[in-house]
Amino acid sequence: MGFKFVLVHGSWQDARSWDGVTPHLERMGHKVWAPTIAGHAPGSDKNVSHADCVKSVVDYIVHHDVSDFILVGHSFGGTVIQRVAEELPDRIRRLVFWNAFVLNDGDNLDSNTPPHYRALFEKICQPDGSAMLPFPIWREAFLNDGDFALAKRTYEERLSPSPRRSHTDAVPLKTFFSLEIPKSYINCTEDIALPPGAEWGWHPRMSSRLGLYRLVQMPGSHQVNFTNPELLAHKIVEAGRD
Amino acid sequence: MGFKFVLVHGSWQDARSWDGVTPHLERMGHKVWAPTIAGHAPGSDKNVSHADCVKSVVDYIVHHDVSDFILVGHSFGGTVIQRVAEELPDRIRRLVFWNAFVLNDGDNLDSNTPPHYRALFEKICQPDGSAMLPFPIWREAFLNDGDFALAKRTYEERLSPSPRRSHTDAVPLKTFFSLEIPKSYINCTEDIALPPGAEWGWHPRMSSRLGLYRLVQMPGSHQVNFTNPELLAHKIVEAGRD
Amino acid sequence: MGFKFVLVHGSWQDARSWDGVTPHLERMGHKVWAPTIAGHAPGSDKNVSHADCVKSVVDYIVHHDVSDFILVGHSFGGTVIQRVAEELPDRIRRLVFWNAFVLNDGDNLDSNTPPHYRALFEKICQPDGSAMLPFPIWREAFLNDGDFALAKRTYEERLSPSPRRSHTDAVPLKTFFSLEIPKSYINCTEDIALPPGAEWGWHPRMSSRLGLYRLVQMPGSHQVNFTNPELLAHKIVEAGRD
Repeated sequence: MGFKFVLVHGSWQDARSWDGVTPHLERMGHKVWAPTIAGHAPGSDKNVSHADCVKSVVDYIVHHDVSDFILVGHSFGGTVIQRVAEELPDRIRRLVFWNAFVLNDGDNLDSNTPPHYRALFEKICQPDGSAMLPFPIWREAFLNDGDFALAKRTYEERLSPSPRRSHTDAVPLKTFFSLEIPKSYINCTEDIALPPGAEWGWHPRMSSRLGLYRLVQMPGSHQVNFTNPELLAHKIVEAGRD
Repeated sequence: MGFKFVLVHGSWQDARSWDGVTPHLERMGHKVWAPTIAGHAPGSDKNVSHADCVKSVVDYIVHHDVSDFILVGHSFGGTVIQRVAEELPDRIRRLVFWNAFVLNDGDNLDSNTPPHYRALFEKICQPDGSAMLPFPIWREAFLNDGDFALAKRTYEERLSPSPRRSHTDAVPLKTFFSLEIPKSYINCTEDIALPPGAEWGWHPRMSSRLGLYRLVQMPGSHQVNFTNPELLAHKIVEAGRD
Repeated sequence: MGFKFVLVHGSWQDARSWDGVTPHLERMGHKVWAPTIAGHAPGSDKNVSHADCVKSVVDYIVHHDVSDFILVGHSFGGTVIQRVAEELPDRIRRLVFWNAFVLNDGDNLDSNTPPHYRALFEKICQPDGSAMLPFPIWREAFLNDGDFALAKRTYEERLSPSPRRSHTDAVPLKTFFSLEIPKSYINCTEDIALPPGAEWGWHPRMSSRLGLYRLVQMPGSHQVNFTNPELLAHKIVEAGRD
């Protein structure tokens, strides 16, 4: 039986983040929707709030009239699907967080990252309100399981500056933790986009905030959408099924 | 060369826990014994103590006159094989703990689980002294690598209420930590039956209590006996061999 | 394109540590150099300092006139390549630490291992200044993914006593942490040569000291050079490439 998936990308990325994953999901008989979050399209207005980000995904789902779907969030996208779940709880069959942030009520993304990351992005923030991930971090800590050519190509053809406010706005989450939507967490075991370990690591720091959740793991970096999209597609199904 | 294995199941399970594993071990040339722990057969008297659990396994081994065997304990079964090793040290070639509890002297299982688990089982404990694992926990946190149909079928056909006292009785372990029996620990890397992490996770919290031990890991949940019995059989041999 | 690799072994081992790995690297088109660290050849003078160890590798590299190479250090070898990098920074393309110690300035290896290890090696240290790893530790905690025959054979044919001072000498590292050489860390996920966990484990305790680094993981023990040399060769390339 086929599922419906709405895939929400992470920072510095857009709907094209899923280009390699979607064909595999469709070939398995599933339907896929992949919005670009407000402020994340290359060249778009970068002065957007976290609420604008959330609204753009809610509007996309309502406009396409998708319901009974599995909502997947990657990285920063986790903070977006938390709020989308609050806005459209009855449409969502299950939430899947893939190496994603799970914020506590009133928190922002920045405070969940190490101080040297925060300092870096403050420093490189542009007058238009955007900040770009430096290539050496992308190559070593985001795409560590890919080769240099893939790191270079994806950086040039798939990435663009992100709105800084999406990381610094406080995110109100008044109902998220009492929603009865089932939840899963996909953890890539070589993901070092956040420093591994109890203090800053993705798992179990973020996953444990979900309460009862299903854990799915796979080998790979923060960007297996680029380095191993077929296995990611299978793991999204394993995480998303009933 | 063939080994002899005595396999001791976990809570809410019985000898049938190993139905999928035993044929693989036998096909590899090994011999298998699988007792049902007192109070764990469906419909049996649930008013049994931890000492009764231990005695039933000791009696089984003596009755079948098994010696020079590898003693494997899963989950709650770890607390049982610790005590069996104290009672029959000369018969045991090696101890294998598979995502199993390793208790300190005088400890009980309950105090090694998170407070919300303890509160849950206190609340759902029945007048006959038994408590059953709720299905949503089985599906999401015990069999997270299986599909819904397998979770449902195993829950209905392989599980039954466990005697509450097996988790709350203090277990005296006066000689266990000075026994010179070699020890191994099998850790399934997606096991979230206990919350992953330093505070409550299986490994290295439980494994490190063994002193010098051999670590064997495999992908999968707390119940790879149901989701991947063939690989589990191979890992039991890898853990159990000299 | 082929890379140049200089491979630096760990304690109780010598250049033959890489016998199974080198042919795979060469078959992939790479060039390999593998020095034996001073004091580590069987029968050699064991009264050598950590500085002597470093000098022997620096001399080897200069003598063979190797440059633009990837410098790989295993276990104790990590402390050696840290210092070699300080001495020959311009020759090194990338540093790869494979389940290796990464010392802070002025630290020694011993203080980065658990007290029971330190006490053991103090106790078994010989009059000639050497100490040998006991076989049960090699079998259970170093070669846990191999069978008994391989553990026995490698212990007898590949291991010899190590100079104790290599573990107890303080290692000055005045420039290492400001070198701009790219760094990678290979972590074997079943390596229990150091007790897993935040307090004593290899990863992320050692890896995180590198600052920005690339993580590569593979299944296996501390000695996959013996139990899975082909996969190790591939992971060394994955860690070493640009």
